[in-house]
Amino acid sequence: MSKCIVICSGGLDSTTLLYDIHNNPKMEIVGVLSFNYGQKHKKELLCAAKTCKKLKLEHKIVDLSGIKDLLKSALTTNQAIPEGHYADPNMKLTVVPNRNMIMLSIATGYAISNGAKRVFFGAHGGDHAIYPDCRAEFIRQLTMATEICDYIPVTIEAPYINRNKTDIVKLGLLMGVPYQDTWTCYKGRKLACGKCGSCVERLEAFTKNNIKDPIKYE
Amino acid sequence: MSKCIVICSGGLDSTTLLYDIHNNPKMEIVGVLSFNYGQKHKKELLCAAKTCKKLKLEHKIVDLSGIKDLLKSALTTNQAIPEGHYADPNMKLTVVPNRNMIMLSIATGYAISNGAKRVFFGAHGGDHAIYPDCRAEFIRQLTMATEICDYIPVTIEAPYINRNKTDIVKLGLLMGVPYQDTWTCYKGRKLACGKCGSCVERLEAFTKNNIKDPIKYE
Repeated sequence: MSKCIVICSGGLDSTTLLYDIHNNPKMEIVGVLSFNYGQKHKKELLCAAKTCKKLKLEHKIVDLSGIKDLLKSALTTNQAIPEGHYADPNMKLTVVPNRNMIMLSIATGYAISNGAKRVFFGAHGGDHAIYPDCRAEFIRQLTMATEICDYIPVTIEAPYINRNKTDIVKLGLLMGVPYQDTWTCYKGRKLACGKCGSCVERLEAFTKNNIKDPIKYE
Repeated sequence: MSKCIVICSGGLDSTTLLYDIHNNPKMEIVGVLSFNYGQKHKKELLCAAKTCKKLKLEHKIVDLSGIKDLLKSALTTNQAIPEGHYADPNMKLTVVPNRNMIMLSIATGYAISNGAKRVFFGAHGGDHAIYPDCRAEFIRQLTMATEICDYIPVTIEAPYINRNKTDIVKLGLLMGVPYQDTWTCYKGRKLACGKCGSCVERLEAFTKNNIKDPIKYE
């Protein structure tokens, strides 16, 4: 058994990843981390908690609301969430500077403290264009640092780095992932907006799989 | 002018570094970060605040107390702080798993949000033996990740990586650093204990410079 930590935001990609690893008989998930970094769509954290409860996994929501004022992003400030296609240049406004390294570094420390040597997260191919910290090259460099940050090496792994959201939903549907338990919309209102880049990408993934997204939209 | 962020714990090394960079006419410090990660010696944060006020620098104490329970270390738990020489094997108990990467990743995000391209921190030669994340190799690998984590590269720099604490105090004394404004003891009581590894190393650095440490000991 290989002990690992999984980062799960409560979104579609990382929830699929969590089921995927949970289903793997060679893996033992010693803990799941979600992060509150002041995002408007905190609802995703409740989804992550629900999934972990269903799967009977140890779950921690890490309170990083103290860094909200340090990092400028439309996700955490009064700035409006841009609408349109997720690959549009204005989606850059939704980048939270260095968010992935911040979350992965904490997950690595948590792994070390719990005897786990692997940290999984849900970065995927569709993210590359606008999120520099979702690229394979970035993950490769970061894992070279996490391998020497302590006495025991920890690796950072993003199994979906070469898949897009459509592929991920396809895989999730095969595993029976209950997508009604996931939250994607950046706006974090009662219902998903269906217009922000994140919603547009999600809807596209379900359409391409010829299935209706089980969550409700405004 | 080169814009930078400096991490300052309020301890001897990073306070010296802060004066050093502040004195450099080519550098512009856009912000100083200190971290509350649940350490027993929170008094150091007040020292950092005092120094920043004196130097008229923007200072933020980042509240990471939410990660305290995730990272096992004698610095943050009920476990007793080990006494003795700072190079002794029992000092490993004072390692906070991946602390430096956690602090540096947040400082990098803060740098990106403020147009700074350099992040400085006070890792030094004397730390190598017991702290894996103070080694030059670790810093080299990490900076290769921070250089590609965003659209604009950020470098991590540890100018004292090849100096020991005695060298650092020597430099600080030349610059007139008021060492009474720094806190080193891991125990965080009213006065410094003089017995923990951190105190022992500090006292040794002053003794080797033939000068009395201006702070009071128990």
